[in-house]
Amino acid sequence: MSLLESSQTDFHDPRLATSRADLLAALRAFLPTDAVLEHEEQVRPYECDGLSVYRQLPLLVVLPRTVAEVQRVLRLCHERQVPVVARGAGTGLSGGALPVGDGIVLSLARLNRILALDPAARTARVEPGVRNLAITEAAAPHGLYYAPDPSSQIACTIGGNVAENSGGVHCLKYGLTVHNVLAVKFVTMAGELIELGGAAPDAPGYDLLALYIGSEGMLGVTVEVTVALLPVPERAQALLAAFDDTERAGHAVGDIIAAGIIPAGLEMMDGPAIQAAEAFAHAGYPTDAAAILLCELDGTLEEVAELTQQVRDLLLASGATLVQVSRDDAERLRFWKGRKSAFPAIGRLAPDYYCMDGTIPRRKLPEVLRRTAQLAAEYRLPVANVFHAGDGNLHPLILFDANRPGELERAEALGGRILELCVEVGGTITGEHGVGIEKINQMCVQFSPAELAQFRGVKQAFDPLGLLNPGKGVPTPRRCSEYRQLSGSAGHQHGAGASH
Amino acid sequence: MSLLESSQTDFHDPRLATSRADLLAALRAFLPTDAVLEHEEQVRPYECDGLSVYRQLPLLVVLPRTVAEVQRVLRLCHERQVPVVARGAGTGLSGGALPVGDGIVLSLARLNRILALDPAARTARVEPGVRNLAITEAAAPHGLYYAPDPSSQIACTIGGNVAENSGGVHCLKYGLTVHNVLAVKFVTMAGELIELGGAAPDAPGYDLLALYIGSEGMLGVTVEVTVALLPVPERAQALLAAFDDTERAGHAVGDIIAAGIIPAGLEMMDGPAIQAAEAFAHAGYPTDAAAILLCELDGTLEEVAELTQQVRDLLLASGATLVQVSRDDAERLRFWKGRKSAFPAIGRLAPDYYCMDGTIPRRKLPEVLRRTAQLAAEYRLPVANVFHAGDGNLHPLILFDANRPGELERAEALGGRILELCVEVGGTITGEHGVGIEKINQMCVQFSPAELAQFRGVKQAFDPLGLLNPGKGVPTPRRCSEYRQLSGSAGHQHGAGASH
Repeated sequence: MSLLESSQTDFHDPRLATSRADLLAALRAFLPTDAVLEHEEQVRPYECDGLSVYRQLPLLVVLPRTVAEVQRVLRLCHERQVPVVARGAGTGLSGGALPVGDGIVLSLARLNRILALDPAARTARVEPGVRNLAITEAAAPHGLYYAPDPSSQIACTIGGNVAENSGGVHCLKYGLTVHNVLAVKFVTMAGELIELGGAAPDAPGYDLLALYIGSEGMLGVTVEVTVALLPVPERAQALLAAFDDTERAGHAVGDIIAAGIIPAGLEMMDGPAIQAAEAFAHAGYPTDAAAILLCELDGTLEEVAELTQQVRDLLLASGATLVQVSRDDAERLRFWKGRKSAFPAIGRLAPDYYCMDGTIPRRKLPEVLRRTAQLAAEYRLPVANVFHAGDGNLHPLILFDANRPGELERAEALGGRILELCVEVGGTITGEHGVGIEKINQMCVQFSPAELAQFRGVKQAFDPLGLLNPGKGVPTPRRCSEYRQLSGSAGHQHGAGASH
Repeated sequence: MSLLESSQTDFHDPRLATSRADLLAALRAFLPTDAVLEHEEQVRPYECDGLSVYRQLPLLVVLPRTVAEVQRVLRLCHERQVPVVARGAGTGLSGGALPVGDGIVLSLARLNRILALDPAARTARVEPGVRNLAITEAAAPHGLYYAPDPSSQIACTIGGNVAENSGGVHCLKYGLTVHNVLAVKFVTMAGELIELGGAAPDAPGYDLLALYIGSEGMLGVTVEVTVALLPVPERAQALLAAFDDTERAGHAVGDIIAAGIIPAGLEMMDGPAIQAAEAFAHAGYPTDAAAILLCELDGTLEEVAELTQQVRDLLLASGATLVQVSRDDAERLRFWKGRKSAFPAIGRLAPDYYCMDGTIPRRKLPEVLRRTAQLAAEYRLPVANVFHAGDGNLHPLILFDANRPGELERAEALGGRILELCVEVGGTITGEHGVGIEKINQMCVQFSPAELAQFRGVKQAFDPLGLLNPGKGVPTPRRCSEYRQLSGSAGHQHGAGASH
């Protein structure tokens, strides 16, 4: 079954031409010419996001500059029942910004101003199109930074981070987007401006802010975000440890966490990932290791010195064959350079790769790595593993060549099997990339029909006509029953790991 | 306008007798005799919660022992459209567990088992009727504890904590209930069992767990909670500082936070509160001080020693007239004894008191204290102030005598004015006690009609017939328009303090 069940209309379909022309005229009536893209060559760059195996041209692309323009665009689309897919930088990895053929893409790229930065309150109020890293750059003169750091932080926008509840290397200690955002303003599909959250520790009424963060553009269009900033730690130090088998590395992760240490980052890479990263970034990784761990510690000088010694001892006791402590910031950044470029590095090994994103209970790491390797052999596709080990958040990368007949389908099927393995061991089908279009079938495995009905009820409360990002995130009952028939799945298995 | 707009039916109303008898028979068909309370003297203890100024007898009280029984009770009530008010220990302070006259009270007190405690994963899976402190007691042999510690922790249940998103003295550093709960199982009004959350850092689909926590019993009935446990810190130390004016104490709070220190607790008491607490608890407080600050620091030995020195210097630089550092754990607990017994201590000063719960941006502390004193004079009622200063979470206690005609109404009106003052300076109408029945009118001030409509939409998605805890939390449009007319309020003012 194709993942694209919604409106697969052709850009040149004559039936759409009239409605597109009408919509274009109505938009042009209040937007400047350069704010509406209509020609195929203009619209082409918006046909996919970071999950480029799925592509779809939208009807039109609209690029408003103000909140009032966003409201007018949404009111118009609401009135005419035109679907709307909001888009930040398009770096998402689950197809959350994939257009629908009979709808518009609403790009927030031009709402890109930092509205206020309050060093005393340690907050920044920004428009959704501001890049993640630009917030940290603006805060740096005050000794502050914005903590969540997805790999794409140089390009991705805060609006997209809110949509996906993005994490990053540092989310083990500093949390996901939801833990670092204080308030959001969004526009409903009907054009109403809604304000959620604030500076207070708790909010009266239901916690719609937490509900909204990570809702993948299905509940509203974000037009303003207030983030919390953190003081840059006095000191940061990284340790690099090599292991001759992945299982031992997995146990070392558990030992560090069990000792009550919360590293700023705790990452693992397996052999294929190490070799690819080293060839690309020359980070000084031991290419003969079966696995490496990168562990960053931050805090005051004394704290970091004490923790570094503790972690070093734990790593050696866990059977690390080599432990290096960064001697200065240049070396620390070199350790991370390999990890941060792992995805493009692995990308050089094959024409295409498919980055998975599942979570598992930490103690299941060795088992899941072993079974992933078995699945990879079964589907005859190489898999490299890079992951946020401290969180139990896996990123297996499946390498394939979409030009070879059948490989895309095999990669998709293997990806699905890996996610279902995550659910089976008590994990979930997404750690930080969202469901989007990519994992919509696995939602049928993760949740019961009653739980999915509850999701649909919430969606309906925000967007009764179902015009915002249709076909993403939450599967229809029909999709689930078809998927269950096709896959022979025995129904849902809820993944509340720790408690079962 | 009375806060009690819903079904004010009389317990002896003959029109209810038949339906009550029918319901009783239907409940008795599957529940043991002692699980349904029907007589007035049995039902009387359930007529109010900690907000005892509002009282209402329910139709019946039901005390199931199993999840299956909870499901059957809810299915039956759903079928017969009987309202249901869930109740834990009844220690809530906003009337969230106040019965409705034509509905049942569903007590979760008998679902009180600790189902699992996993010291390695640092989690406990418990039934909703388990007391907050009982979790910490069970975890203590493993060197672990459950962080959120409301003043009522000896009595209040984890199910009630989930309903109210409870905080406590330590939530400045360790967060509210929502930050310490990993998963919840609840039963919908229609009787479906739903599981939210898990051990993974992010969850696929909308974040219904965060939405559910703090939803005041209006979305479902909690039947199981998985909490995160924390390691007991190696060391804890408290500082007691006295000030000769409250403004200076308020600035000292800002100085500590601005220095990047996150104390485990940072509490302030004003003159009347100090005097009452000292007379009651003999904590050694300086009774001539205009305000005292209590600051607790925890962590490793070195960390606490370093932070204690830093906080001591900051307090003296802020103009503290006295700074005492606890010499041992006995002295530390003595410092806290006064704070923890402040409410009953103040309770001795007048026959009744009304504990408010608002939040404000920290920098507004001096202004709000001054204007609260002016309002107290205007309404001719004494007000003592005890608050979580680090969070900007105020607990003004209004002293009155309900037996004197007009005093209850004056206390209620003064409380409303204080909450509206919180909103005016950019704060919110509840920090940790919830909206319940108490603050339902102020919701009309806090939120716009579009925002309130969004809350109602979410409620409808979970409980379409509106049978769960009716009349609480989210006001009807009619209530808001009446309240705005009566109070001459100019509409809502959104309180996203830090960003405005």
